Amino acid sequence: MKITINSPLDMHLHLRDEDMLNLVAPFSTKYFSWGLIMPNLVTPIKTKQDVISYKKRILDSTKWEDFTPYMTVFFYEGLNYEILKELKNEILAIKMYPDWVTTNSNWWIKSIDLEKIWHIFEAMEKLEIPLCIHWETNDFVMDREKNFIAIYEMLAKTYPKLKIIMEHITSKDLANLLDQYENLYATITLHHLLITLDDVAWWLLQPHLFCKPIAKRPEDREALLNLALNAHKKVMFGSDSAPHPKEKKEAEFCSAWIFTSPIALQCLVELFEKHNKLGNLQAFVSDNAQKIYWIKPIEKIVTLEKKDYIVPKNYGEVVPFMAWKTVSWSVI
Amino acid sequence: MKITINSPLDMHLHLRDEDMLNLVAPFSTKYFSWGLIMPNLVTPIKTKQDVISYKKRILDSTKWEDFTPYMTVFFYEGLNYEILKELKNEILAIKMYPDWVTTNSNWWIKSIDLEKIWHIFEAMEKLEIPLCIHWETNDFVMDREKNFIAIYEMLAKTYPKLKIIMEHITSKDLANLLDQYENLYATITLHHLLITLDDVAWWLLQPHLFCKPIAKRPEDREALLNLALNAHKKVMFGSDSAPHPKEKKEAEFCSAWIFTSPIALQCLVELFEKHNKLGNLQAFVSDNAQKIYWIKPIEKIVTLEKKDYIVPKNYGEVVPFMAWKTVSWSVI
Repeated sequence: MKITINSPLDMHLHLRDEDMLNLVAPFSTKYFSWGLIMPNLVTPIKTKQDVISYKKRILDSTKWEDFTPYMTVFFYEGLNYEILKELKNEILAIKMYPDWVTTNSNWWIKSIDLEKIWHIFEAMEKLEIPLCIHWETNDFVMDREKNFIAIYEMLAKTYPKLKIIMEHITSKDLANLLDQYENLYATITLHHLLITLDDVAWWLLQPHLFCKPIAKRPEDREALLNLALNAHKKVMFGSDSAPHPKEKKEAEFCSAWIFTSPIALQCLVELFEKHNKLGNLQAFVSDNAQKIYWIKPIEKIVTLEKKDYIVPKNYGEVVPFMAWKTVSWSVI
Repeated sequence: MKITINSPLDMHLHLRDEDMLNLVAPFSTKYFSWGLIMPNLVTPIKTKQDVISYKKRILDSTKWEDFTPYMTVFFYEGLNYEILKELKNEILAIKMYPDWVTTNSNWWIKSIDLEKIWHIFEAMEKLEIPLCIHWETNDFVMDREKNFIAIYEMLAKTYPKLKIIMEHITSKDLANLLDQYENLYATITLHHLLITLDDVAWWLLQPHLFCKPIAKRPEDREALLNLALNAHKKVMFGSDSAPHPKEKKEAEFCSAWIFTSPIALQCLVELFEKHNKLGNLQAFVSDNAQKIYWIKPIEKIVTLEKKDYIVPKNYGEVVPFMAWKTVSWSVI
């Protein structure tokens, strides 16, 4: 049994830089038609020159020419209409983080001081640049995502023509928000469709399943599955795949994030097949994103076969999601 | 400034065996007057001979003669009135685990098949042997403890003269249960008074703070603090201190449990002082337990001084709770 996916898109991807970029990029460029590249490098991607240079490094890292890296820049207080206008042709979206939330984000926006940045949202709305947000509050870990809902609602109401993408949503509360505001969209990762906090911390603690936002309760995963398996038109696949060396995952203090690029498609096919929803996979991994972002990717047919694939224990210094486990589909 | 504690008692203690026993026991035997020793060795403590032999190994492991190890045995289906009668003079309580819940418990009670074991509870009630329970259901990790409440209630009602100690409680729901049933008691650990899930898994994942039951929400910790700081008469200190080698804590799959014995008293004094509740500390760490277990410990005065103590990075292969941090009280 075989299945083909036309131009799979990864709408949330961390490729890092230098050696790590060279190690991980080929898994995305081989299997996907494009990726939306996150800008949180050690020196964040801010300027047009940053974007052009990083895009070149990405393209140089891979032999697969049928892959397009679509770029983003960090949201920062210095952005304005002129800068955004100049950036527009080089980027697909702006990515916004609070200062504490993720790898290399710690020097950025210091507070939800929105008044200072209204004019940036207005400019993005005018220029039709989508806003991708990973924002959690600083509350209790299981509540951080949902406690940001009031801000999502305010933004969605104030800028009805600004496309706002709630990145890698993990909770039923955010899932429920999608149908309430026309301009709210979401990406969902593979791992949040498969795991809950139970997998991270039950019999043994599993640092390789520790990610941000943290995997939540079973009813939250159910809500995400309901969106993805039915290919809700405002939802796209975004792996949030992000590599960390094993020594940073198995440590006194373990880094967050999960590396899924090499097995994302295989696992998604397995999951959609299990739920008898294979007919919706194309929309979830490609068509919805094309409509949301108004873009036509390079045509690229990826074929998978129903044949066991044993996930490697590691790729260099990086341990992948599902290491040593067997997935019932392989890319051919 | 100095404070003395008269005969501090640790009512829930894991000392392990062999090299690990020799490494960790001195911290308990130096600072505490007695400990209630948990029976979950690789070969669990079941028989009178097991108890006598393990007690001797504990006493041999330490030079501090003013410490009494009070013993427990594993609850198992083969227990009956005759066996319990013979055990009674050697033990202080029976410890019950489900089969999946803790280190070396995985071969024990296979299900909550209570009908088969009613007669054991009856015998314990008659012989006045307390029942210590660490039981969580197999539900979602944050609900496992509270979902066992129905069983606690059934046992408390059915055997009103059986003293039932809910071990290392972590949730407000169990805290609320104490005043509803005369024969329900509880131990509380140091770490559950100090941390929530936020500390285990926020910016970085901290395997050395991973324990069972897992640390819960802020409102749960508040409920525990309320009991401990006010020395609720049905609540006792039980460290649940349990060492694991560093290599099992910083790994692909990290073991649970936290090693607190060397700094438990120092941290408790700091905590009670911070909340202006030093006057209740003696009851929480000694007097309540004496009344609940009807036992008079060896008199042992432990004196602490308000003087910074830097917690060592490690004791041999074991990383302690609060490693490298400073506590404002020292034992002298």
